[in-house]
Amino acid sequence: MPKLLIITQKNDEYESLIRAANLPDLEILSIQDDKRTSECDIVLGEPARIREHLPALKNLRWVQSIWAGVEPLLAPNLRRDYTLTNARGVFGELMTEYIFGYLLAHERRIFKLRQAQVEKYWDGQNNGTLRGKTIGLLGVGSIGAEVARTAKHFKMNVRGYTHSSETSSDVDMYYHDNLLEFVDGLDYLVNILPNTPSTRKLLDASVFQKLRKHVLFINVGRGSAVDEDALEKALREEKIAGAILDVFSEEPLPKEHPFWTTPNLLMTFHTAALSLPVYIVDLFVENYHRYLKGDALNYQVDFERGY
Amino acid sequence: MPKLLIITQKNDEYESLIRAANLPDLEILSIQDDKRTSECDIVLGEPARIREHLPALKNLRWVQSIWAGVEPLLAPNLRRDYTLTNARGVFGELMTEYIFGYLLAHERRIFKLRQAQVEKYWDGQNNGTLRGKTIGLLGVGSIGAEVARTAKHFKMNVRGYTHSSETSSDVDMYYHDNLLEFVDGLDYLVNILPNTPSTRKLLDASVFQKLRKHVLFINVGRGSAVDEDALEKALREEKIAGAILDVFSEEPLPKEHPFWTTPNLLMTFHTAALSLPVYIVDLFVENYHRYLKGDALNYQVDFERGY
Repeated sequence: MPKLLIITQKNDEYESLIRAANLPDLEILSIQDDKRTSECDIVLGEPARIREHLPALKNLRWVQSIWAGVEPLLAPNLRRDYTLTNARGVFGELMTEYIFGYLLAHERRIFKLRQAQVEKYWDGQNNGTLRGKTIGLLGVGSIGAEVARTAKHFKMNVRGYTHSSETSSDVDMYYHDNLLEFVDGLDYLVNILPNTPSTRKLLDASVFQKLRKHVLFINVGRGSAVDEDALEKALREEKIAGAILDVFSEEPLPKEHPFWTTPNLLMTFHTAALSLPVYIVDLFVENYHRYLKGDALNYQVDFERGY
Repeated sequence: MPKLLIITQKNDEYESLIRAANLPDLEILSIQDDKRTSECDIVLGEPARIREHLPALKNLRWVQSIWAGVEPLLAPNLRRDYTLTNARGVFGELMTEYIFGYLLAHERRIFKLRQAQVEKYWDGQNNGTLRGKTIGLLGVGSIGAEVARTAKHFKMNVRGYTHSSETSSDVDMYYHDNLLEFVDGLDYLVNILPNTPSTRKLLDASVFQKLRKHVLFINVGRGSAVDEDALEKALREEKIAGAILDVFSEEPLPKEHPFWTTPNLLMTFHTAALSLPVYIVDLFVENYHRYLKGDALNYQVDFERGY
């Protein structure tokens, strides 16, 4: 009989949602019951918290991460004798709402119009539109595909940069290398790449130099993909129009970091796509049925590639 | 040979776009040439400006308005011996970008997060999502249909209130009367209705009372549809969560109007869907070909109904 251990900040919420799903044969163990946690074969939780318990989980066969990022479980000295699945799919819609919220806020000048209201000034100036604009997606996995689908809905041109296969038909043109060619001519650049050795500081001064002056850059992938000094310089010197950052090299961002006050930089707080338990449990339930049948699980992470 | 008179604030831009379209047999008359304006059979322009010239246009057969709203040409004492077409279709996409820009700004708390940045406060709170929310569209013409299409893209529930036929299949449920039933249970209420006798102050205290506390109201139709005192009161008393207004009973809005400083009210300046000449000329070109062939023109206005 499968035994599940839940290791999250919201164990009660997860437990009641999973109990409500009436999964066959599943026993839920309590993290408080030290003696029995070693019996569990399934863990659902946050990667950093799971990491601490890894050595003790003698019967572990499957870990379902509630997040997309699973870096804490990828260190080469950690065991890899289990199947690691992460949360995908569920984030695509939330990320898309975030990205298009900020793209539209930019085109519609909503902060400027708010200021006009404060000054009681009737600002009848025209606005920009998404239609016909070119968006470049760094990373075209399940999240990128969802962003591309929405970009086509708004009649945009879509470029995708990926080292994987060309799975989304909503991408008009794929690039597999030559990053500078990929970014040349974009209106918006969106980073969705995970944190891997090959993405670190991929977005450096040479990239920001190549972007046109009106480009808006959005980072919802990982802070490590950006050379933050180079980005700050590009914004201060108005080489690009703006940046929307949800992720940073260090989080929470230290108070003395220049990004807090960099012009034309809007930040959010790694909240572009927070795990909503109700979404995650849906995903867990489907994977549990696959687990029982012995089918391949959805969203397996390759420990070497890191995603 | 058809003769066109252009009466807009941007005559030169319209003339050069129309010349670039190389329309067969078309002569473009100058508004400066008083002696010849009476010869024109076609007018392209802004309703209020056209109105002044109506009596002199002896040969008038067709007026193409560059705006959706044509109130200035509908007064009962004015001639109606010509075909009046307005601008439709082109506004749907722009209105949709406006509406979804503000819906997402609301769910994503983008003004609050900007304030957190100013205060150097790492605000990791969760956000709302569009998915599963219910939007109510007052008016389901070509603009409403486009808004409904985008709402379905974001997996929302869509209600439509209309006195016309049920043309959009993206509306889940239609209401033809009983406004209070229509608004009951909504998450967002969007007014897209034109200005007609039956829409005046349609949104009054009884409607705002019926809305739930978290509702966001958006008006991109006409200011006359709203009882502005009742709306201001509903916002001050926090009966609803907020209002996004692009249109007002008087425009530009007088400096002493309370809306400038009403809490949770964001205003824009009748700019949700400004006529972009390049869109309007596309529409004129298609109608001109129909005119030459003697076919029914697109987007004819019924002088009685007013749209």
